[in-house]
Order: sequence, then C-alpha cells, then structure tokens
Amino acid sequence: MPLFFDLLGVFFFAVSGSLLAARRGFDIVGSFLLAGMTGFGGGIVRDLILGVVPTAFVNPFYFIPPAIATLLVYFVAPGVQRLVRPLLIFDAAGLALFCTSGTIKALEAGMNPFSATLLGVTSAVGGGLIRDVIANKTPSIFDPHDIYAVPAMMGSGLIAMLWMLGIRGWTWELGVTAVVFALRILSLKLDWRVPKAVGPWHHDTQLR
Amino acid sequence: MPLFFDLLGVFFFAVSGSLLAARRGFDIVGSFLLAGMTGFGGGIVRDLILGVVPTAFVNPFYFIPPAIATLLVYFVAPGVQRLVRPLLIFDAAGLALFCTSGTIKALEAGMNPFSATLLGVTSAVGGGLIRDVIANKTPSIFDPHDIYAVPAMMGSGLIAMLWMLGIRGWTWELGVTAVVFALRILSLKLDWRVPKAVGPWHHDTQLR
Amino acid sequence: MPLFFDLLGVFFFAVSGSLLAARRGFDIVGSFLLAGMTGFGGGIVRDLILGVVPTAFVNPFYFIPPAIATLLVYFVAPGVQRLVRPLLIFDAAGLALFCTSGTIKALEAGMNPFSATLLGVTSAVGGGLIRDVIANKTPSIFDPHDIYAVPAMMGSGLIAMLWMLGIRGWTWELGVTAVVFALRILSLKLDWRVPKAVGPWHHDTQLR
Repeated sequence: MPLFFDLLGVFFFAVSGSLLAARRGFDIVGSFLLAGMTGFGGGIVRDLILGVVPTAFVNPFYFIPPAIATLLVYFVAPGVQRLVRPLLIFDAAGLALFCTSGTIKALEAGMNPFSATLLGVTSAVGGGLIRDVIANKTPSIFDPHDIYAVPAMMGSGLIAMLWMLGIRGWTWELGVTAVVFALRILSLKLDWRVPKAVGPWHHDTQLR
Repeated sequence: MPLFFDLLGVFFFAVSGSLLAARRGFDIVGSFLLAGMTGFGGGIVRDLILGVVPTAFVNPFYFIPPAIATLLVYFVAPGVQRLVRPLLIFDAAGLALFCTSGTIKALEAGMNPFSATLLGVTSAVGGGLIRDVIANKTPSIFDPHDIYAVPAMMGSGLIAMLWMLGIRGWTWELGVTAVVFALRILSLKLDWRVPKAVGPWHHDTQLR
Repeated sequence: MPLFFDLLGVFFFAVSGSLLAARRGFDIVGSFLLAGMTGFGGGIVRDLILGVVPTAFVNPFYFIPPAIATLLVYFVAPGVQRLVRPLLIFDAAGLALFCTSGTIKALEAGMNPFSATLLGVTSAVGGGLIRDVIANKTPSIFDPHDIYAVPAMMGSGLIAMLWMLGIRGWTWELGVTAVVFALRILSLKLDWRVPKAVGPWHHDTQLR
C-alpha cells in the first residue's frame, strides 16, 4: 500500500516534469530525465536525511512512472497551449501524496513531530523545486500569486498531530491527502495569497 | 555552546535569505522557506557528508531562527533600497560562523585536516549558494568584484592547523570567526579581488 | 587503479568547470570552486546514496585535480573562442569515466543491476548538471541538439549486463568507457538527435 501511493506520487511529479520538458523543447530523453528527477527528487532528499538508501535506488519498479509519464506526454498531450494547467494539477497531486507519505515515513523512523512535519514538507516541495531550478523556471514554491507550501505545511502538521493522538491508518492519510490537493487547486482557482515578504508600509518604496 | 553558535549562524543566513526573498517579491511563506533553506542548507550538506542526521531535523529549536528572520524582515526592514548591504553583512556573519563550526565538527568526527577544511568551506558557502541558485541570482561565491570563499578557506584552514597543534577552545574559535567576518567585510569595502580564471594574456580576446 | 581512474574523471570534469568559469568571467578562486563542484558533484551524490562518506572528503589527493585544472585553464588556455569545444571534450571524458566507475561501485555495494545502472548514470551526469545549474547555463543533459545521457545510459547498462554475466575486469571497463566517450563525441560531430518530448503531431502548435 505505501509502495503503491509512493509510486503514484512519483508518477504525478514525473508527469509535471515531462510537461515542463515539453514546454522547454527538450527531447524525449531529457523529458525522461526531468521526469525522473522531479519524481525521485523529494524522496531522495527525504531518505538521505533519514539515513536510508533512497527507495528509487532499491526497487526497479521506480523506473516505470517516469517512463509512462514521458510516453504519455509524447503521445497523448493534447496540444501545447493546454500544458500549463495539467502541469499544475499533476504537481498538486504529487505534492499532496508526498507531504502525507513523507511525514508518516519520518514519524515511523522515530522523528519528533516538528521534525517530521519539516521533513514531510521538504519531501513534498523538493521534487518540484529541483524540477524548476533545473529547467530555469521561478520555483512554484516562490510564486506569490497563489499558495503552494501552505497546504503541504498544514497537511504535514495535521498528519503529525493525528499521529501523536494515536489516530493512524490509510483512510486518515488519504483524507489529509485529498484536503491538501483540494486546498492547492482552490488556491489556483481563487488566487489565494499570503502577504509579501516585506510589510505593507514598505510597498510605496520602489521594488527592484 | 556549539548549539547556540549554530543557531546564530542559521539565523544570520536566514536573514540573508529573507532579505533576498523581499527583493524578489516573494510572499511571507516563500520568505520563511528561503530563510530555512539558506540557514539549514550548509549544515544539511555537512551532516549528510558526515553521515549523521542533519541537526535541523533533530532539534525543533531550529524552526525559530528562520521564523524570527522572516518576521524581522517583514516588520523591521527599513526600506528596500537598503536591502543589499544588510544581506551581505548577515551573509558574511553566517559564512564566518559556519566555516569555524563546520571545520570543528568535521575534526571531531575524525576527518583528516584537509578534508575537514574542505567540509568547513562547503558548509560555509553551501547555504548562500543554495539561496542564490534557487532565487536565480549569480552566486556571491562567483562574484569577481570581491572575495567570498577566500576568507572561509583561510578560516577553515587556520582552525584545522590550530587543532593539529592542540590549540582548541571556543575563544580561539571565536577569534577565527571574527577574522573571517572582518576579511569578508573589508573585501566588500575595499574591492579586494583575485585574478580572473583566464590569464591576463587572454584578456585582449573578446569574452563571450 | 580505481583511485587513478576516479581522479582522472574528477580531473576531466574539473577542467570543464574551470573552462566554464573562464567563459563566465569568474575569478581564479571561483574557477577552482566550480572545478571542484563539477569534479566532486557526481561522486558525492553517488556516495551519499550508497551510504558511504564521499571519497572527496576522505582522500586529500582529491584536492589535486581541481587545482591542476584551474592552473591549466589560467596558464594554457589558448584563447577564449576555442573554449567551447574543449569544455565539451573534457566533459565527455568525465562522463564516460564516471558512468563506468559509478556503475561498478554500485554493483560492488550489492545494488541490483537496474539500480546500479541508474546510479551510474546519476554519477555520470551529476557533476555536469551541478556545473551548469550553478553557472546558470541550460544543462548539457537537456540540450536537444545532440545526445548526452544516452551514451551514459548505454555504458552503465552494458557494464551492469557484463557484470551479471560474470564478465569483469578493468580491460572491459576501459573498453566500455571508450565506447561511451566515442558515442558522445560522434553525437556532437554528427548532430545525432532523439525525438522531442512532444510528439510530431503537436509540432504545428506554437511552442512557448
């Protein structure tokens, strides 16, 4: 069960990587590599911090999601104008799955709830951050036009809190995952924002 | 004591991250995240190489410096035009603290003095490098208008040399930290430079 | 013997880093640092995933290749117009050596052949990717005008296959290394390409 959800998260991020590769004019091998880096990135960082061999380098099945993602984008992508929206939707699904699974994995390894929340957020935002930095795009995580990390923070924190209260099991995890996904998608639809890094009394000053 | 200086180094780098986030127009969550990545980045790389769980994922107190840094920049930053200078000063303080503490931690883990110097420099420049790469800025480390890594190299090498001579203790460490900070700040004031990567006999050739 | 080839691979990547530093106008310290990051990058990622202390932080000899590379570019580089071609040639040599040695190291650590191939490719392309991301260049790995990762994938896969068949030894390894190098160089000369990430039926659509 955890393997299935982890592979699913890898797949969603991998599709977002392949779609960005398509927009950037990369070739099919570059698409597969960006899919792999986006899909594996967050999990590799998570596992290195936990001190275990990253799952993507243990189980050969992890090859499959980036391969399917690359073929899917190559054969099915219904036109380049529509590639922005699906990228964001697949990215949101990966974000939601990884924030839950990353927090659980950290808690199971014996981390305290604060650190587990931090690691959950790190593994959730890591893949997309690597994707955007490599493809030379302003990372989604820093786009001030919507909220990206806040749903992941809330989801990871909620999972850690439920865990401390003894409330566990995959139905709860799936519920939190769905909430994180919904919050992220709603923030895109409704342009939810949080205040800028500089307080409002500085906004008359010219930004560079 | 080491914990206090480590948290202080995290705080200085975190402020530099928050200030860059403000200049880039990120929101307050992006400011917190860039503060965290800048503050934790060098230490995470250092600890992964040493094979221990990164301190930021062990001790919940590490949440505090990026949070304070973000609030400080939001509430106190006295205007955006002046944000470049404080960014460099806070970054220099983080650089100085991390080059000393990183070298010591490597020596305590039993590394040879060469490798400990290398790891000290890596942990000193790592956070700022991650910050600049993520925020799409030419890394300070590669700015040819002043010196950045040289003070860290000198400081780490000096700490390793004193350690081999049996001269240890926090007063020495603090002294070296102050020297590194002073050298970095003086290089900014006085435009100290080192030669370009290509010898002077190539300078008539047009650079691309 | 493995140490010699590893140092040679570090040296080739280090030269490519120094040459890029020269083109970017970095100073000699930045050139040394970019040389080190390019030379050590792939091996550090490989060793962290394998759970061992990165070789560059164990053996002080690893200081030597980036130092020689930096001096070489400073004193010998015969003019800036010619810096693109040598960068690609040295990078290809590093790629070939690291894909072979990375796969062998993973197999010796007990990894399955699929994961060993993946780790070989990761360590082969890692250094160049770090170099290009840091110097703000589109990574060679994603340049659709030639093939970069394909020779590494073929080389790593071939090594893993030979290993499973019981065919080992440094003459075989050297042979595969030479084939990977030759394929990469031929792809540059002959403009070999693979299909774009988006299928041909989308090419009438305007790319952004």
